[in-house]
Amino acid sequence: MTPIQHAAAKARNLTEALPWISRSEGKTFVIKYGGAAMVDEELRDSFARDVTLLKKVGVRVAIVHGGGKEITETATKLGIETRFVDGQRYTCEDTVDVVQMVLAGRTNTDIVRRINLQDGDAVGLSGVDAGLLRAEKFTENGADLGLVGNITEVRPQHIELLLSNGFMPVIAPLGVDENGTIYNINADVAAAKIAEALKAEKLVYLSDVEGILKDGERVTNITEPRAEELISSGVISKGMIPKVRSAFDALNAGVGRVHLIDGREKHSLLLEIFTDKGVGTMLVRGEPEGACQKKSACSPSNS
Amino acid sequence: MTPIQHAAAKARNLTEALPWISRSEGKTFVIKYGGAAMVDEELRDSFARDVTLLKKVGVRVAIVHGGGKEITETATKLGIETRFVDGQRYTCEDTVDVVQMVLAGRTNTDIVRRINLQDGDAVGLSGVDAGLLRAEKFTENGADLGLVGNITEVRPQHIELLLSNGFMPVIAPLGVDENGTIYNINADVAAAKIAEALKAEKLVYLSDVEGILKDGERVTNITEPRAEELISSGVISKGMIPKVRSAFDALNAGVGRVHLIDGREKHSLLLEIFTDKGVGTMLVRGEPEGACQKKSACSPSNS
Amino acid sequence: MTPIQHAAAKARNLTEALPWISRSEGKTFVIKYGGAAMVDEELRDSFARDVTLLKKVGVRVAIVHGGGKEITETATKLGIETRFVDGQRYTCEDTVDVVQMVLAGRTNTDIVRRINLQDGDAVGLSGVDAGLLRAEKFTENGADLGLVGNITEVRPQHIELLLSNGFMPVIAPLGVDENGTIYNINADVAAAKIAEALKAEKLVYLSDVEGILKDGERVTNITEPRAEELISSGVISKGMIPKVRSAFDALNAGVGRVHLIDGREKHSLLLEIFTDKGVGTMLVRGEPEGACQKKSACSPSNS
Amino acid sequence: MTPIQHAAAKARNLTEALPWISRSEGKTFVIKYGGAAMVDEELRDSFARDVTLLKKVGVRVAIVHGGGKEITETATKLGIETRFVDGQRYTCEDTVDVVQMVLAGRTNTDIVRRINLQDGDAVGLSGVDAGLLRAEKFTENGADLGLVGNITEVRPQHIELLLSNGFMPVIAPLGVDENGTIYNINADVAAAKIAEALKAEKLVYLSDVEGILKDGERVTNITEPRAEELISSGVISKGMIPKVRSAFDALNAGVGRVHLIDGREKHSLLLEIFTDKGVGTMLVRGEPEGACQKKSACSPSNS
Amino acid sequence: MTPIQHAAAKARNLTEALPWISRSEGKTFVIKYGGAAMVDEELRDSFARDVTLLKKVGVRVAIVHGGGKEITETATKLGIETRFVDGQRYTCEDTVDVVQMVLAGRTNTDIVRRINLQDGDAVGLSGVDAGLLRAEKFTENGADLGLVGNITEVRPQHIELLLSNGFMPVIAPLGVDENGTIYNINADVAAAKIAEALKAEKLVYLSDVEGILKDGERVTNITEPRAEELISSGVISKGMIPKVRSAFDALNAGVGRVHLIDGREKHSLLLEIFTDKGVGTMLVRGEPEGACQKKSACSPSNS
Amino acid sequence: MTPIQHAAAKARNLTEALPWISRSEGKTFVIKYGGAAMVDEELRDSFARDVTLLKKVGVRVAIVHGGGKEITETATKLGIETRFVDGQRYTCEDTVDVVQMVLAGRTNTDIVRRINLQDGDAVGLSGVDAGLLRAEKFTENGADLGLVGNITEVRPQHIELLLSNGFMPVIAPLGVDENGTIYNINADVAAAKIAEALKAEKLVYLSDVEGILKDGERVTNITEPRAEELISSGVISKGMIPKVRSAFDALNAGVGRVHLIDGREKHSLLLEIFTDKGVGTMLVRGEPEGACQKKSACSPSNS
Repeated sequence: MTPIQHAAAKARNLTEALPWISRSEGKTFVIKYGGAAMVDEELRDSFARDVTLLKKVGVRVAIVHGGGKEITETATKLGIETRFVDGQRYTCEDTVDVVQMVLAGRTNTDIVRRINLQDGDAVGLSGVDAGLLRAEKFTENGADLGLVGNITEVRPQHIELLLSNGFMPVIAPLGVDENGTIYNINADVAAAKIAEALKAEKLVYLSDVEGILKDGERVTNITEPRAEELISSGVISKGMIPKVRSAFDALNAGVGRVHLIDGREKHSLLLEIFTDKGVGTMLVRGEPEGACQKKSACSPSNS
Repeated sequence: MTPIQHAAAKARNLTEALPWISRSEGKTFVIKYGGAAMVDEELRDSFARDVTLLKKVGVRVAIVHGGGKEITETATKLGIETRFVDGQRYTCEDTVDVVQMVLAGRTNTDIVRRINLQDGDAVGLSGVDAGLLRAEKFTENGADLGLVGNITEVRPQHIELLLSNGFMPVIAPLGVDENGTIYNINADVAAAKIAEALKAEKLVYLSDVEGILKDGERVTNITEPRAEELISSGVISKGMIPKVRSAFDALNAGVGRVHLIDGREKHSLLLEIFTDKGVGTMLVRGEPEGACQKKSACSPSNS
Repeated sequence: MTPIQHAAAKARNLTEALPWISRSEGKTFVIKYGGAAMVDEELRDSFARDVTLLKKVGVRVAIVHGGGKEITETATKLGIETRFVDGQRYTCEDTVDVVQMVLAGRTNTDIVRRINLQDGDAVGLSGVDAGLLRAEKFTENGADLGLVGNITEVRPQHIELLLSNGFMPVIAPLGVDENGTIYNINADVAAAKIAEALKAEKLVYLSDVEGILKDGERVTNITEPRAEELISSGVISKGMIPKVRSAFDALNAGVGRVHLIDGREKHSLLLEIFTDKGVGTMLVRGEPEGACQKKSACSPSNS
Repeated sequence: MTPIQHAAAKARNLTEALPWISRSEGKTFVIKYGGAAMVDEELRDSFARDVTLLKKVGVRVAIVHGGGKEITETATKLGIETRFVDGQRYTCEDTVDVVQMVLAGRTNTDIVRRINLQDGDAVGLSGVDAGLLRAEKFTENGADLGLVGNITEVRPQHIELLLSNGFMPVIAPLGVDENGTIYNINADVAAAKIAEALKAEKLVYLSDVEGILKDGERVTNITEPRAEELISSGVISKGMIPKVRSAFDALNAGVGRVHLIDGREKHSLLLEIFTDKGVGTMLVRGEPEGACQKKSACSPSNS
Repeated sequence: MTPIQHAAAKARNLTEALPWISRSEGKTFVIKYGGAAMVDEELRDSFARDVTLLKKVGVRVAIVHGGGKEITETATKLGIETRFVDGQRYTCEDTVDVVQMVLAGRTNTDIVRRINLQDGDAVGLSGVDAGLLRAEKFTENGADLGLVGNITEVRPQHIELLLSNGFMPVIAPLGVDENGTIYNINADVAAAKIAEALKAEKLVYLSDVEGILKDGERVTNITEPRAEELISSGVISKGMIPKVRSAFDALNAGVGRVHLIDGREKHSLLLEIFTDKGVGTMLVRGEPEGACQKKSACSPSNS
Repeated sequence: MTPIQHAAAKARNLTEALPWISRSEGKTFVIKYGGAAMVDEELRDSFARDVTLLKKVGVRVAIVHGGGKEITETATKLGIETRFVDGQRYTCEDTVDVVQMVLAGRTNTDIVRRINLQDGDAVGLSGVDAGLLRAEKFTENGADLGLVGNITEVRPQHIELLLSNGFMPVIAPLGVDENGTIYNINADVAAAKIAEALKAEKLVYLSDVEGILKDGERVTNITEPRAEELISSGVISKGMIPKVRSAFDALNAGVGRVHLIDGREKHSLLLEIFTDKGVGTMLVRGEPEGACQKKSACSPSNS
């Protein structure tokens, strides 16, 4: 191909994206960003380009990120020991301090920096800013996990201001209670709650797996009762459990669709949104399984 | 390539357009649409997709179109004879009637229809609407060409309202004088005047040639003095003369850049805007030729 | 009278209109403009002045016009034959083309031109612009009338933008389906649907008769059941049937009042609106006849 | 004439006012209202109708009124003696109290009440409200006139808010200094200063004479040098002097036109604005007399 | 204390008010201002400072004032006799005239003047302005009290415009009927109706007593049934009856809280709002007495 | 004092602040927050209250903070060695990482948290967000200090959006260059540049000294030439030099006033702003010393 032919082929590609662009324009997408996609240097830049492109074609993008392994690394370097309670990490005051430093300081700044290199107008913030995430001490089955928090209220005014004025909020999931105590918040849950508060059309989890897998095969879509079955049978386990449950809470509270996709695949975010071929698992509002199977039989639409 | 690989390649293409998207975002482009690009069925749809894409990525697009051969055809069918004065077509009242019918009725509606199929939110209008193009009888060298008009004033408030609210104006170049008499206006000149009034960043002429040709080769960029030389020597002739002259008027009045590109080439509009390789002739603000040659020697930038 | 006395009398007249101006200020009126009022040269200018005056005193005026005899004339001149199906004109593709040219090209431009001569800031558009009138092929009793359309959706955002910014939309009743096929739409029905979408206070039909006539006398107001009786008995017939039925649909959907008035009478539009003496037939929301008669007995108010 | 013919004649009158309405739409008029027009019961209602009509057709109307004879009457009734200094009334504290009561209490409320009966959305206020008229003790030639004030600053934000939101401010000319002392302000001067601050297009003085008279004849228009001559020769005298001088100050500061008209004539306000035949004296920006005479010779335009 | 220490103590005081400021920010307070607080010179200035401070910290303050003794005094000076009907003052036309002069002229201007000396951006108005208080002749038990009015409608648009733009409306309680007749309105009732129309959070009556007293002790809070008992038993009597009843009407219509406080105490307004210790009587929404007592037992909160 | 008397005394204090509140309302203050005021627990809360109070009374407050000793401490704990170049600390990549973590992660979050406990609606951000601080590698006298940056451009749109919508930006002084490299920026210089970009009325430096001291005495105000003298003579030295120089740059670029005050004194911020007695050194626009001395002789005003 001559350079002109090559460029013309690109131009054709661009115009082929038009139907998906039209469908997404003006919609709000909340993207949980974590795992591998946040570790690999090349994937980070690819992610920055993808979200910037979404913003440029009219999507209102808000990002919630996790902290991953860096928190543990930095804690270790600073000589903070890790204690476990019933197999769950106990978050002491020093750890929250490290969480702030790594999440709100380093990780957040790095994501913002990369997006802004693409001209994405990102703005970093945490749940402490403008009282975004109001929290309280997490309690479940009497386990005391220290400064781990439950979200009790989301105040999205500040993020909405940013979205309406062409900025892209990048949110570190810290919460704060009425006494000013700062808590570490599960990023998957924070993303779901923020999607709810923003009445988002889409909530996308970029994770380290291809979606939900059963017997080695990707489940293309799933309802709440079926998900609970898979939790009972251990197919869905560990960190996937709060992710899936808070995602269904968000769906039930009005979020349009939830997707679990593989962040290790370059551009998987655009593929999920701009093509008919989904690349992960779509969570479907909780109709009884029977009704759903019938529906999927007819022609499961992706977006 | 598997379908997913194919889609991923497309996604990469999309993100590669980011720098050009950033550069064009929020800018106003006036596009003169005519000639072959307006005749061929496939090119028409391709044009509709291109301008819609520009709009979706944040460009404020206004289109001015000509009428081409259809006016003559319809006039002939209606039994209106064509008279010539000094070799120029004389526009009688019946002809203006046909111009209205074809330009504002059929051609305009067809362009709008095709863009709206792509979800481009086009709105058709003519220079008569909201007093957009105020005109007077054209006079030059004493020739009476009937109801051909000169633009005396542009009132762009209505188009600006449309652009600011996400609509794409598609303009038929009719003008009206203070007595309500309607005139036929040269579409090239109308595009230049409207670009001026909107303080557009780009004015693009889609025409039937590759740009300005000299000795069979495309001139990649040209200044006003050089253009006047080519007019004197007959290299630039006929309809290209008012096009080039009004284009330089627009440049001198503050329009950022003017491009003459080949509308017969699919997606040439996107190529000109979204790539470094220009595909036509760029008109450069009127520095003396010497300075310009030096500049072009250094590395003529395209956008 | 001296000139000053004459002018003072005029000034007094102006102030006498104050109560009607107050009552209409800020209200939306949709005016179906057609028939004789659109043919006679003097009536056209009188109409342009009347609607401009309404706009100047604060009424939000939208006009929907028909095409009348010109469409047939132009079709004939262009050699397009007219076919009939069950006594109804069949609209082939060539005819739709003529409809576009005459309605959206010539008639629309002429109305806009005349209103703008009065400084009425009119803007011409058709149902194709910004997807205003979404249509589908008309089907009733299995008759195939070609490209005649039913309105399936009205998207009034663009007209509302114009009205809120001091422009007067003048609308040619074309519709478009999802494939981009253009349909000819009954102007009476289009006016009613647009009035509904705009939640108009008044819908006025300027036609060639004094209103609904029974035994040679004008019916001053009428309810839906009574109208259906008159349709059954043949008193209301032909083109008056869809006009009356769509008008009652509009009333039932929330439009304040509907008037059928005589467009052949100069200023009848202002008379209907600015005086207590109605000049046509007012359609009254569908109370049962008994209740209505009682009400009319008491003192039928006009506005 | 039948009632319908009568109504049609009125409708024609209304449309004949269109050119003047267009010319005045969106303009700001400051009207000094005083003298006879404010005394006679019928003229008061006529005035209320006139200003409401101006507002309804799009003029931004602000009214500054005087107090006239009622102040003296009420002062006398309350047993407040009137003292004179060099032939000018001395305003003591008790008098300012009466001025407040009559001007801001009774007269202002009465004007507002009448305009609102016509649906003119009038709002009464005084120069004390929102610091509209900042004043200081009047001093000229060493005469101490007590609490008579000079305007030192106009803060028009509040009036502009009212005008922009469809209200009609009716202003009692009180002023206040930085210590909160309230002063009586000459209404003619207040009107001129407010017109300046609002950058009004027109300042109209409704007074008890036909305009400026010389040798029993009305002067149709006059420049500043000529006015000063007439002051020197005593043709312009007494209260007309500050009126004329502050009017020329306003003209020089950018107010478009100033008219002195006869408030005793019903609807003279509309006549001046909506007809070509002026009914008073127009003050013309201060060109040298020669130039002006030539201009008036050519064809003095009225509006 | 050194001056700096003194200033630092003040600064500490300021910051201690923060919690109350936060709680009141953006809320609307309607303050009935009358009685002693409006008579004493020092209390007037203190009131002006208090309301200005409320405004500066973000409260939207609207004031309704009475006229007090000055109306009678001025009426007497002007020789207007006072007639009584069944022990109630009869308001003849001359009296309404005096009410206008004193209320809207002198009292209103004086309040505005004092607030503006503190930079409170007050704007004086009466119920006649922009049709704020629509009234009709008061009738109760057949007594004809002349031009005393009942409020039939409140049109708060103008006041809301002022509040939203940082102005403080000061309202004289006049009303007007559809014929333009002006009525004297009870200021307590006007304040309650205006608070209702503005959906105010607080309605505060500054009066000449410490609140409601029973057996010489202040009642700190009271419900509607209990208030009716105290009216029956004569503990609440005379002018306190309409005040209390209209206050409960306002509460029932959605006003947040009503306070009756002692205007003779300096800064009592700030004390009531900015401290936990209420200084008057708080009216509590009409729960049955039992429930209320229980609640008060628990810990009657003040704000 | 009884509790009520005590409360009344407080209320009086509040109203005494009115003149200063009026003077500051709507103004923009940039506050450099660092040193002791940022270390001591009690001073931190006191600062949070002070800035919240400023915001509540209408000041637009933006805070720029330093990082202080915590950066060094954390670096040491993480085993990052400190290198010196010509006596200046060299900032390597690891150090910038620590700066991000401490400044943007911990310190920023802590300031935001404390202000939000007072309901101050703080929003934390860094110079990387929305491209606020564009930087390049710092170079002076050829010294390579690593990733220390000079500010080349300030893009204040995002902060202005926050300020206009009632949020209080708290800014960590990081900068970023066009390749995405992050730099450590001197907080004093960042504050000055941001004050310039916001056209702030006041720029306040809260530091560890009482202002500029000469011979043990506080200099109450100082001009640029005099400051340069004190720099030459070594009276102003070390970190005070860039602070003073960037402050004068800000003054010369249009910032209203600059104050250097003692952050170790509680409420010194309010004292400087809300009293006549300044507590630090005020920098005065650079008039020649002579003129200034004369001015200070007359009566140096503080605010």
